Amino acid sequence: MILDKINMPNDLKNLTIDELNTLAQEMRELIVKKVNTTGGHLGPNLGIIETTIAMHYVFNCPEDKIIFDVSHQCYPHKILTGRKEGFLNPEKYGVFTGYTAPEESPCDLFKVGHTSTSVSLATGIAKARDLAGGKENVLALIGDGSLSGGEAYEGLNNAATLNSNIIIIVNDNDMSIAENAGGLYQNLKLLRDTKGKAELNFFKSLGFEYFYEDDGNSIEAMIEAFKKVKNADRPTVLHVKTLKGCGLRRAEINKERFHYIMPGMADSREFDEINPVKPAPQAETYASITTDFILKKAREDKRIIAISPATPGAYGFTKEFREKLGNQYTDVGIAEEHAVAYASALAKGGAKPILSVMSSFIQRTYDQLSQDLCLNTSPITLLIHWGAISGADCTHLGTFDIPLISNIPNMVYLAPTNKEEYLRMLEWSVEQNEHPVGIRVPFNALKSTGVSDTTDYSKINRFKMTQNGEKLAIIGAGNFYELAMTVAQEVQCKLGFKPTVINPLFLTGVDKEMMDSLKCSHSLVITLEDGCLDGGFGEKISRYFGNSDIRVLNFGADKEFTDRVPLQELYQRYHLTPELILEDILKALPISV
Amino acid sequence: MILDKINMPNDLKNLTIDELNTLAQEMRELIVKKVNTTGGHLGPNLGIIETTIAMHYVFNCPEDKIIFDVSHQCYPHKILTGRKEGFLNPEKYGVFTGYTAPEESPCDLFKVGHTSTSVSLATGIAKARDLAGGKENVLALIGDGSLSGGEAYEGLNNAATLNSNIIIIVNDNDMSIAENAGGLYQNLKLLRDTKGKAELNFFKSLGFEYFYEDDGNSIEAMIEAFKKVKNADRPTVLHVKTLKGCGLRRAEINKERFHYIMPGMADSREFDEINPVKPAPQAETYASITTDFILKKAREDKRIIAISPATPGAYGFTKEFREKLGNQYTDVGIAEEHAVAYASALAKGGAKPILSVMSSFIQRTYDQLSQDLCLNTSPITLLIHWGAISGADCTHLGTFDIPLISNIPNMVYLAPTNKEEYLRMLEWSVEQNEHPVGIRVPFNALKSTGVSDTTDYSKINRFKMTQNGEKLAIIGAGNFYELAMTVAQEVQCKLGFKPTVINPLFLTGVDKEMMDSLKCSHSLVITLEDGCLDGGFGEKISRYFGNSDIRVLNFGADKEFTDRVPLQELYQRYHLTPELILEDILKALPISV
Repeated sequence: MILDKINMPNDLKNLTIDELNTLAQEMRELIVKKVNTTGGHLGPNLGIIETTIAMHYVFNCPEDKIIFDVSHQCYPHKILTGRKEGFLNPEKYGVFTGYTAPEESPCDLFKVGHTSTSVSLATGIAKARDLAGGKENVLALIGDGSLSGGEAYEGLNNAATLNSNIIIIVNDNDMSIAENAGGLYQNLKLLRDTKGKAELNFFKSLGFEYFYEDDGNSIEAMIEAFKKVKNADRPTVLHVKTLKGCGLRRAEINKERFHYIMPGMADSREFDEINPVKPAPQAETYASITTDFILKKAREDKRIIAISPATPGAYGFTKEFREKLGNQYTDVGIAEEHAVAYASALAKGGAKPILSVMSSFIQRTYDQLSQDLCLNTSPITLLIHWGAISGADCTHLGTFDIPLISNIPNMVYLAPTNKEEYLRMLEWSVEQNEHPVGIRVPFNALKSTGVSDTTDYSKINRFKMTQNGEKLAIIGAGNFYELAMTVAQEVQCKLGFKPTVINPLFLTGVDKEMMDSLKCSHSLVITLEDGCLDGGFGEKISRYFGNSDIRVLNFGADKEFTDRVPLQELYQRYHLTPELILEDILKALPISV
Repeated sequence: MILDKINMPNDLKNLTIDELNTLAQEMRELIVKKVNTTGGHLGPNLGIIETTIAMHYVFNCPEDKIIFDVSHQCYPHKILTGRKEGFLNPEKYGVFTGYTAPEESPCDLFKVGHTSTSVSLATGIAKARDLAGGKENVLALIGDGSLSGGEAYEGLNNAATLNSNIIIIVNDNDMSIAENAGGLYQNLKLLRDTKGKAELNFFKSLGFEYFYEDDGNSIEAMIEAFKKVKNADRPTVLHVKTLKGCGLRRAEINKERFHYIMPGMADSREFDEINPVKPAPQAETYASITTDFILKKAREDKRIIAISPATPGAYGFTKEFREKLGNQYTDVGIAEEHAVAYASALAKGGAKPILSVMSSFIQRTYDQLSQDLCLNTSPITLLIHWGAISGADCTHLGTFDIPLISNIPNMVYLAPTNKEEYLRMLEWSVEQNEHPVGIRVPFNALKSTGVSDTTDYSKINRFKMTQNGEKLAIIGAGNFYELAMTVAQEVQCKLGFKPTVINPLFLTGVDKEMMDSLKCSHSLVITLEDGCLDGGFGEKISRYFGNSDIRVLNFGADKEFTDRVPLQELYQRYHLTPELILEDILKALPISV
């Protein structure tokens, strides 16, 4: 195996082109096998193997600095920079993250998992080099949809004025996660069609030197291309055409589905070209009832419009769903800032926008939520997906959306606990005209009570008391309402009294009347929230009871970035199991209990 | 006066060009007089008078929709849309806001005060029109630096694909607040120099139809230009060259200083062309000690670099200061997202970045603070200016930076209370290598203790007890430390005991040891913070004491957008006067006191 000889990028430099091509084939097989076992980003990594080999062949890493955008196309880079064991040895598949990680290798500069950051980061690295009088190359590798994010543009705009070496590699595979959306991609197409020769050139207009390479999956061509830009003395763009999913036919054909795959998809019969086996129909999920709801509403009302910032697959906005919606659907590309402002204006214009965003990516929009949306009290429906404590990478945590969203004036942030509540909230939110409404889509398996919810959500901050008890009140928000119920049963069973249980429904305020009513027969209130405690929901309850005899305990996540820590370990750490909560309750309750 | 006849834009349509020109002159005089009396944005409004008149002459507002970016160039629009009294009558100068405001006129669609939002908002309005089958024109008027913001680009990228009417007016006065920064502005210059004919065209590259008008200060020319784009059936850019400050010579010459003026500047002798009178040297301010500190450090250490996202004047980064720093200064343009990522990478590259941002504008960077900066624990110094409760416009409140910043893991957010603490914090922050550090620059008048601060700020979350007392502990953060001292004196005087006073220094955590030490001899803790309570500092204290006998009262601002409410009225509303705090203390303390 050629790969046996490669421990660091320098080891590439003695290989022939034939050997490099063999290496690419070895790497491709390893990546498919590993990702098909663990799940992960497949298409982007298959597309960038040859470019990565050529890049490390021409440049000198770690002296030369390479910053990967999103970094979900860094697997080939990882294999070449001391981490091949994570791909060769199934037992070590889990050792390295799916993103760049400075603690793993001197060839990684940043922990990166959000898109559109590489150019800004590279500009800073290049400027620091200039201040220190260095001469090394600084590269940003961007593509795969990331160019539509505002931060990428802000970075390009500043990078162009750097007056020294910075090389932006645009990996153009004609795809974002789904199809590319936005005017820029028309220009990339024109440039591809003219092999980089069109006069109309986005990058040149910003002031970059510009080079084009039509075959990013040819190591030989890419070596020549990189040699042309190496040691450039001014800001330079190398626009490279690659094939997403290159080398795995089903990934080349089904680019969107193979962007990120679940284990087994690389050999699943679902993607056989002849006689594919249709997957068994899925049970109802929160994603499926969301899309069913939107489709039904959209048919009835032409003002309904669904919006996604380039992650439609994450919440079930399949190609079929999008096609059914037609002009009642917009994928704005990776552009959450625009998505929020756009939705706000749609609502002002009389439309009924439903915007779906991942918890971790709504972080890109604080100011738009504040200024474009909430200051203007536009009645949009914002669905926040994947908001929960999880074993995710440190770059994709869903624990910060409550602090982020719920402290913005005028916002109404709802936390449903079952199907019926969720559907009722959706219906209310879409039809009302007064509030910007966020709904934290449950992250649990779908739970149905079978009983229609009749709550009037226009009564803002009115909590629901689902069990009227004494001594202890348990407020379980959203995903953690079930945990609250479990704790309540344990308390009754082990401590011999029936506690009060409250489903707050709202994360943005306090039901003062209900809280006051607790004072006469309760001495302890506990709050449970599936997110970061700092700035979160529970602290509002603590503040409210600060000047009273009621004691309060807040349960939720610490303010920290966790990195692939198993969920059960996090629950132990944060005392989020019924047993540990019970222990804390026992310590906090007066001895008389 | 021609203006007597103008109550709504339609009234323009019967006027001759001569009359329109006279009207422009009348409006110019009114704007200079008004702004020179009240203070406000002058240069941008003087530059856009003729364009605004022509726009309202050609289009039909409010049927046609016009969205102003930042909206600090909306004064001429306000005069023509029913609000001329606010400029004619000195007694009504304060009646209308300096920004667009839907509650004032049907011709305003959004409350806008942050930049770079107009294209996104217009895209939403246009799409809503398309869904409803409407035919009206939708215009965004952007310029004056706003084009560098990421949201503007995200909006352009989506607007270009709209396939229907949207008209982006680019008001190109070759200036941001200070000089324009970024590659895009080279392209705008090329387009101006070639009267719009250059092949290399940023807007065309994104897919827009493009028109250029060289004389945006000619009503006649602009009428013709607007007629060309009216009823365009696809996304269109009209690039207009205007003169910032047009018609007031000193504003034309001193564009940056006359962007926003204080009362009297229009006739101050400081700007006389012959024998200008130098203003008296200013007393020391937090801005002046900041720039002195940066200049001194930068001379000693070439790795020091100061960064501003296009608002250098707001914190004393004068032209002279910038020139002295040379390549140790970057104005990234209006691009806070990039600014944070750039600073983070500079620090990773070994430089020592000091980034200054306004409290209200740091809102544009939550995700960059989280992912680019704090996840990577880059040691930058982030100076947050104007963070305080104030009588500002609803778009420029400085009350949300504590909730925004202090709940992000790894961040250290400091709140100095005097000159010596501030300088010590600056020195520590710049020289340390472990933490992303924010400093909330005091908004009070400068206060000097005359005694060097020797605190070791590497001991994170260690509060400072400045008065050791009993029963009551008053934690006064940053700007409100002085208020805490005043309250303490009142308590001693009126209640006859000496309370404890604490300067927390850190806004990002709790000094558990010190808090625990309070338990034996205190029954009440109060917190004072100059910002929004929800998600803020005080709630962390409330949570910490939730399960104890200590009662806690948090004082600070409610979660609301206030709009030019006088500061004293807000202090009354939030119980932030010594008298009202004392009343609340009396109610909360056990009767035995």
